[in-house]
Amino acid sequence: MNYNDIKTIDKCTIAARGGMTLLSQEEINRMMEVGQGGVHELFRKCCLAVLNHDASDDDAMAVLNRYPDFNVKLIPRERGIHLQFTNAPAQAFVDGKMISGIRDSIFAVLRDIVFQSAQKEVSSFDLEQPFDITNYVFEILRRAEVHQYGLEPNLVVCWGGHAINRVEYQYTKDVGYQIGLRGGHICTGCGTGAMKGPMKGASVGHAKQRIDNGRYVGLTEPSIIAAEAPNPIVNNLVIMPDIEKRLEAFVRLGHGIIVFPGGVGTAEEILYLIGILSDKRNQGIPFPFIMTGPKESAEYFYQIDEFIRFALGDEVADLYEIIIDDAEQVAVKMMAGLSAVKLHRSRHKISYYFNWALHIDEKLQFPFIPTHENMASLKLYRDRPLGELAASLRAAFSGIVAGNVKEFGRQQVLKHGVYQIHGEKDLMDKLDNLLKAFIEQKRMKLPGSEYVPVFEVVKEA
Amino acid sequence: MNYNDIKTIDKCTIAARGGMTLLSQEEINRMMEVGQGGVHELFRKCCLAVLNHDASDDDAMAVLNRYPDFNVKLIPRERGIHLQFTNAPAQAFVDGKMISGIRDSIFAVLRDIVFQSAQKEVSSFDLEQPFDITNYVFEILRRAEVHQYGLEPNLVVCWGGHAINRVEYQYTKDVGYQIGLRGGHICTGCGTGAMKGPMKGASVGHAKQRIDNGRYVGLTEPSIIAAEAPNPIVNNLVIMPDIEKRLEAFVRLGHGIIVFPGGVGTAEEILYLIGILSDKRNQGIPFPFIMTGPKESAEYFYQIDEFIRFALGDEVADLYEIIIDDAEQVAVKMMAGLSAVKLHRSRHKISYYFNWALHIDEKLQFPFIPTHENMASLKLYRDRPLGELAASLRAAFSGIVAGNVKEFGRQQVLKHGVYQIHGEKDLMDKLDNLLKAFIEQKRMKLPGSEYVPVFEVVKEA
Amino acid sequence: MNYNDIKTIDKCTIAARGGMTLLSQEEINRMMEVGQGGVHELFRKCCLAVLNHDASDDDAMAVLNRYPDFNVKLIPRERGIHLQFTNAPAQAFVDGKMISGIRDSIFAVLRDIVFQSAQKEVSSFDLEQPFDITNYVFEILRRAEVHQYGLEPNLVVCWGGHAINRVEYQYTKDVGYQIGLRGGHICTGCGTGAMKGPMKGASVGHAKQRIDNGRYVGLTEPSIIAAEAPNPIVNNLVIMPDIEKRLEAFVRLGHGIIVFPGGVGTAEEILYLIGILSDKRNQGIPFPFIMTGPKESAEYFYQIDEFIRFALGDEVADLYEIIIDDAEQVAVKMMAGLSAVKLHRSRHKISYYFNWALHIDEKLQFPFIPTHENMASLKLYRDRPLGELAASLRAAFSGIVAGNVKEFGRQQVLKHGVYQIHGEKDLMDKLDNLLKAFIEQKRMKLPGSEYVPVFEVVKEA
Amino acid sequence: MNYNDIKTIDKCTIAARGGMTLLSQEEINRMMEVGQGGVHELFRKCCLAVLNHDASDDDAMAVLNRYPDFNVKLIPRERGIHLQFTNAPAQAFVDGKMISGIRDSIFAVLRDIVFQSAQKEVSSFDLEQPFDITNYVFEILRRAEVHQYGLEPNLVVCWGGHAINRVEYQYTKDVGYQIGLRGGHICTGCGTGAMKGPMKGASVGHAKQRIDNGRYVGLTEPSIIAAEAPNPIVNNLVIMPDIEKRLEAFVRLGHGIIVFPGGVGTAEEILYLIGILSDKRNQGIPFPFIMTGPKESAEYFYQIDEFIRFALGDEVADLYEIIIDDAEQVAVKMMAGLSAVKLHRSRHKISYYFNWALHIDEKLQFPFIPTHENMASLKLYRDRPLGELAASLRAAFSGIVAGNVKEFGRQQVLKHGVYQIHGEKDLMDKLDNLLKAFIEQKRMKLPGSEYVPVFEVVKEA
Repeated sequence: MNYNDIKTIDKCTIAARGGMTLLSQEEINRMMEVGQGGVHELFRKCCLAVLNHDASDDDAMAVLNRYPDFNVKLIPRERGIHLQFTNAPAQAFVDGKMISGIRDSIFAVLRDIVFQSAQKEVSSFDLEQPFDITNYVFEILRRAEVHQYGLEPNLVVCWGGHAINRVEYQYTKDVGYQIGLRGGHICTGCGTGAMKGPMKGASVGHAKQRIDNGRYVGLTEPSIIAAEAPNPIVNNLVIMPDIEKRLEAFVRLGHGIIVFPGGVGTAEEILYLIGILSDKRNQGIPFPFIMTGPKESAEYFYQIDEFIRFALGDEVADLYEIIIDDAEQVAVKMMAGLSAVKLHRSRHKISYYFNWALHIDEKLQFPFIPTHENMASLKLYRDRPLGELAASLRAAFSGIVAGNVKEFGRQQVLKHGVYQIHGEKDLMDKLDNLLKAFIEQKRMKLPGSEYVPVFEVVKEA
Repeated sequence: MNYNDIKTIDKCTIAARGGMTLLSQEEINRMMEVGQGGVHELFRKCCLAVLNHDASDDDAMAVLNRYPDFNVKLIPRERGIHLQFTNAPAQAFVDGKMISGIRDSIFAVLRDIVFQSAQKEVSSFDLEQPFDITNYVFEILRRAEVHQYGLEPNLVVCWGGHAINRVEYQYTKDVGYQIGLRGGHICTGCGTGAMKGPMKGASVGHAKQRIDNGRYVGLTEPSIIAAEAPNPIVNNLVIMPDIEKRLEAFVRLGHGIIVFPGGVGTAEEILYLIGILSDKRNQGIPFPFIMTGPKESAEYFYQIDEFIRFALGDEVADLYEIIIDDAEQVAVKMMAGLSAVKLHRSRHKISYYFNWALHIDEKLQFPFIPTHENMASLKLYRDRPLGELAASLRAAFSGIVAGNVKEFGRQQVLKHGVYQIHGEKDLMDKLDNLLKAFIEQKRMKLPGSEYVPVFEVVKEA
Repeated sequence: MNYNDIKTIDKCTIAARGGMTLLSQEEINRMMEVGQGGVHELFRKCCLAVLNHDASDDDAMAVLNRYPDFNVKLIPRERGIHLQFTNAPAQAFVDGKMISGIRDSIFAVLRDIVFQSAQKEVSSFDLEQPFDITNYVFEILRRAEVHQYGLEPNLVVCWGGHAINRVEYQYTKDVGYQIGLRGGHICTGCGTGAMKGPMKGASVGHAKQRIDNGRYVGLTEPSIIAAEAPNPIVNNLVIMPDIEKRLEAFVRLGHGIIVFPGGVGTAEEILYLIGILSDKRNQGIPFPFIMTGPKESAEYFYQIDEFIRFALGDEVADLYEIIIDDAEQVAVKMMAGLSAVKLHRSRHKISYYFNWALHIDEKLQFPFIPTHENMASLKLYRDRPLGELAASLRAAFSGIVAGNVKEFGRQQVLKHGVYQIHGEKDLMDKLDNLLKAFIEQKRMKLPGSEYVPVFEVVKEA
Repeated sequence: MNYNDIKTIDKCTIAARGGMTLLSQEEINRMMEVGQGGVHELFRKCCLAVLNHDASDDDAMAVLNRYPDFNVKLIPRERGIHLQFTNAPAQAFVDGKMISGIRDSIFAVLRDIVFQSAQKEVSSFDLEQPFDITNYVFEILRRAEVHQYGLEPNLVVCWGGHAINRVEYQYTKDVGYQIGLRGGHICTGCGTGAMKGPMKGASVGHAKQRIDNGRYVGLTEPSIIAAEAPNPIVNNLVIMPDIEKRLEAFVRLGHGIIVFPGGVGTAEEILYLIGILSDKRNQGIPFPFIMTGPKESAEYFYQIDEFIRFALGDEVADLYEIIIDDAEQVAVKMMAGLSAVKLHRSRHKISYYFNWALHIDEKLQFPFIPTHENMASLKLYRDRPLGELAASLRAAFSGIVAGNVKEFGRQQVLKHGVYQIHGEKDLMDKLDNLLKAFIEQKRMKLPGSEYVPVFEVVKEA
């Protein structure tokens, strides 16, 4: 892109929408304080990510650097907060008017970054308590109007990488299309690649079936939104505070999960889900979990599967099904799985809109901060209890993602060098191989730059 | 009524509706605690008042006594709280199923009595702060989904007595009909008499104009709901914590106010409104304010008018208009007034759904507790500033209402004898006359019992 | 009413609504031709009846005479026909604007009187063919958007007199209320009395159950609309061409029928329905049929019942049930009957919205013209086949109604004297008694005038 | 495609939808007669074309040959006609259930082919009368529920070829996207290529703007539907009886027209529109008319423009605007044009939903039957009046399209050899060049076969 081509809109003011109307003066005052102070820079960045929606995926920092003069100002109005933009990317506007869907997303950012921060200060949540964490996740989703009373349990979460190849991308669209044809709806991490394909496919399926209330839920987090800007199909955007709450939102909100090829982020998600589903307390709760990809990507899943079996045992593999190159089959099995979920919930009078019953161990719930100390103290030994090891492996992958693309992680690595991950030799060899395979398959490459590992595996006898 | 005729339904469980679905587990836990403990008796009484909706107006205590075995139990369910009733009045049911509108009202009671109590404990409102009081009033109304973005400013508050005569009742229906025909909606204190007539008339007007989203907002308070059970036309019931917050809700939510004949309660409302509208800080804010009745009731308004002019001065009379026996004229003037309100708000970008701009002095905002000491220390002298005197007069009337029908007031009077009200001789004479006229006109009679005054005017030179 | 009080609106033009928009130029041209020519006077009269909606029931001719200068002109507009009124009754307007519901009814009149006449000229219906008659009835109802795909079979037809007393009127409201509470909807002949009460009651029941799409279908005919102006609750008005098609519409559209006290018109309806339900070809088709009234009116039904048993045999009495003074019971039984109807239709894949399966003998279907010759040639002998005798009795009652209130019949009687009805002595005695009882009970009195019989029973050995 | 891959569904019955429910028994009887007799083969073919929706565009005959055992049977049901399919293409089904959108289209075929044929027999339209033709076109569109009262005049007709190249296709999507972003809706001939691209683009624009009632109207005709199967985005399909009525529907229904590159069919459309807009009687009626394509296709429009100027004069070129390679500009100008249309219609009280005011000369309205005699008698001389020459040129192009792809035309050419077109030498030279250019640019190629001209230009001095 030629930087001379960058077009901006000088000035533009937009009025509140959705949940950001009908605010009290007290809420507005609190938002002004927070939104002009502590979280302003974060809010500015997230707005820019949303406005920049059509750009090909890109280095977050590059995006931000391209619009150094961009700013957004909160203006208190009695009927809700107005936003005033200066030097905003022109692609978010048509004839000087902000595109409706983008405007909705901007107010989702206002709600989740500014309003939630302001509320947290006066709320009673003690985020050191597992019960409170779950209630807080619920509260954020409810405020975002994601929960809707009376909807069928048919929200399919799709995980997978943003840097997948054309064949894989087409396959994610095929799967989404087959799910959309069958009345399923989609929830993803809301960036590009495997996060966009299923939504795009489903939207075509919905159109053919005359389903005009298609749900395309995007769950993101502040530290990643700039790198993975919400794709324009997302019609319900929520920004969860951190990766752990985002993961909890995925599993409590979604009714089944499909995993497409991806990198370490995807591996983190898989380990997180296995950590939960292998928990004895969750036995008997149906949860459809399918890994799938085109035949060209079969190898990827065999490696993952092998690693999981080696690390956590063969029984764990009963929790998921691997289907290669058969989008229709994936959809048919997922829909059958959702029927089982519906039957179970209706029989046990459990809500369709939030899976309160699922037990999530606090090791998976508490935020893992990827300092070098925390990374170094993960103990990756196979003789540890299954749940603990799964949680530690999840944390290890999480730290690597942070080192790759999140600001905090990148700074840690810049300052202290690569992370050291310790563990049992055999297991560490397998991990090493898996990560190398990701690198070879270019699953860890950020667009435009060669990948340099941010970690080092330290084997112990 | 023959007590042998009282029919009840043994047992009945109903599931949550409206805002009481989509609750978090934490909210449910807190509600269980509160609803089974501190506020349970209040909750039980209010439920009974709602279930007893078709009974002719009656002594609250009599109603409660008629169903001594009635009870309601909160049952926590994941999808919201269920309610289990025992020995509930049969008239609330059809073929064993609770009537829909009553079910809605029951959940309004759950929301305003139990949920709000539970929330208050964890909220940040400091109800000693005027700003916080207003925000709290807003919060209660918002939670009750009374505010609706995009509606026109056409909610007409109707005040007046519950014990009016047939001619007066018919007239309130006529006025409501004329307002309904013109697209106005109605908000009242939600009992019978002048609180029911305008809604009934408006509903016919709406039907003829094919307006199928008629709004019939009822604002009540826990201490009066049993005596003035919500009439069945009310489709949006809100129980404000006390009379002061209820009055604030009326003036901030409504766009104009009509006063029909009534007793001391109505006098209290008139003084409250005059106290606000005569405040210099509210100059320039249009607020249509009409007193009206059939020709047979003309005397009533002349007495009120005379008293107001004597007590507060002739200029104050410019704030309202008195129209006798012309329902159509009342509606035409009110609608013209609402147009002025709309113009003003739209010009100044003020919200249609809540009148934040109106300044309410803290003397009118803080609860007045009708102890004998408080009543005795009201200083009713005409040389006091207008706002202060209006507030004191409002408090005096408020205390008399409490002594008549509210539990706290009645107990005070039983214990300590009638209230002593002090003030300047001339003014006290006028007040004395006004109250005597109310008694003569049977405006202070509770149905079924002869009225015995609960106060004594003490004149000072 | 003081004629000086009559207020009119000089001039007013209204634009088409509902089905009368989206017309082709050809349809408009044809309507102009018809509406300014042949049917103009009929159209004018019907419009006046609708505009005069709030007047107490009255002699049709008196209504028309009170507004001699009233006129309505069709104005062709590309987007549908406009109507221009001169000297229209003021009560149809609010602040110079026609009330919405009345405007809808006016366009129902335009559609059924003018548009249908214009269409008939180019249609292929041969109204001498029973099959075509039924299809034509369907076509009129479809055009009026009465049929609605997907609605439950819960439309209860209520028959009965317009000149009932207060106690009876209150009872019709009670029954309507109980039906409305149970989700039933109402269809009547759309005038006052027993045609208005059930709708009024049901509308209160619907409001309490928060049913906001209450259906109040009014089926009338041109020759009676002026005498029985549509009550303002009717939200779906259809003007059928003659009494026979109106009766066919009642029985094919409604899912059950309740008969309240009435005069000869009601007797005609009862005989019509018995004629159909006693037809062997209709055996096995469930059709709830209840006669009911307050205890004060019990005698009425005993007389009817006795007459029917005497004339047509005791088995015929199995087709209906008589319930005295128990509105709740009526509603409970009717709703149970509707459940049976639903089960039967859904089992046999029969449409809910039109009872095609019901066989209506052509004797009941073809119009009976009440000339003296036709009246004199009815043969009321009990040795005739059941169906034939029922049809002849129905025709006899029909002729008497015409002689009472319809223009054609009244002119016949003025010209040729009272009708002569012939038949077997015993049967004629019973008929004589029945009609006398109607007269005594003032069921045949037109308001404001003493009733003078229009017929004479001629007994034969 | 490997013919062994063809999958079919053995048997499948579907119930009526949309306008095909609520039919009278008479209508059903008439449809059975027509649908099993005269038009059955046509109905079968059109159904097959719709069911075969996802196939790449193809020779119509090839499609039909691929499913020789396919059949469809009408089954009379009281609630509307059911359809029973045997050996239907599997791609129209998901898990054995027909895709919703396809089902809708199938019932559009039933309506337009079977119901309309059945109705025509009993209708009063005299299709030799211009006024009746227009009313008939209106009637078909109304029955298809295309007209909708209250919609803005923003339906943009897009014309152009189905066999355009990738660059052109992308460009049609770009234009559709820009129009969709601005709230415009799309109407096309409903096949692939330029008929699909704008709809696809607009649907993305609508999604981004949260416009969830996007209109994608497809107007086709029986003789072309098999060759140009409705694309799956079309949500309102209408099959007009012949090309002349289809063209009339385009210009009376659409509010502006965009022409993309195409072949002779597109040339026919252009001449048709010029014939109308150059008619003196249509002066002053705004009608936005833009020709556009990517820069690679600029030559195409220069040739068309040159030919039009030469044949009909330079003034005619004022009726349209040519915009090259600027999708945004096209949309901006079209929307400005639509604003002018709205202003004009609202000022003159003309309906938004059908352009009755446009005068269409009967030469353009009457069907042109492409026999050799008719083709030979077209007189293409520039000294003829503008309107006549435009009409004759339109007919010449129409005949060529028929010879290329319509059954009747192809049979004529097979039987009698190529058409002979006569005219003035200079004009015929230009025509010759234009057609040769189309051939060179492969605009007249049918997929899969080399194009062989079906006409011969005969020049005269």
